[in-house]
Amino acid sequence: MQWYVIGTVAALLTTFGFVPQVIKMLRTKSVRDISLLTFIQFSLGMSLWALYGLHLRDVIIISANGIGVLILVIAIGLYLYYRARHLKRHEGSIS
Amino acid sequence: MQWYVIGTVAALLTTFGFVPQVIKMLRTKSVRDISLLTFIQFSLGMSLWALYGLHLRDVIIISANGIGVLILVIAIGLYLYYRARHLKRHEGSIS
Repeated sequence: MQWYVIGTVAALLTTFGFVPQVIKMLRTKSVRDISLLTFIQFSLGMSLWALYGLHLRDVIIISANGIGVLILVIAIGLYLYYRARHLKRHEGSIS
Repeated sequence: MQWYVIGTVAALLTTFGFVPQVIKMLRTKSVRDISLLTFIQFSLGMSLWALYGLHLRDVIIISANGIGVLILVIAIGLYLYYRARHLKRHEGSIS
């Protein structure tokens, strides 16, 4: 039972690991220092983990990584949106 | 065999997921937009995963998460260093 709790807390912490970063992006509307490659690498990795979970028919692995990928899709969308907005404004200040 | 490869690639992608972010920090020496809480949350999560791996006596889970935690310790160290440096410079520009 104790190990079940440790495994569950571990899964929850990593599944929702990018939520603070998403909140920070929404708050500051700036993504200059963030690595898009880290988002993409985790998206691919968690997608493969979910696929591996399908193979194992393990609901925990599938759902934890499925939710993780969803959060990363939001993170990548926000990253691209705020970067495009920043570039547009920067362009405007030159012309 | 095919599933073994998928699981291994998944583990490698997520284990080294923060490497691009560490490289970006070293290159730009700026951490303003990065969420420290995301680093901390993943450190705790991966530490618990490694502990869970010890319980399962699973070398893959222990090593993947152990390496992940090491990378995150470096990331947190760099974050605190660059933030302190930024604050010090900012302070200097006021006085």
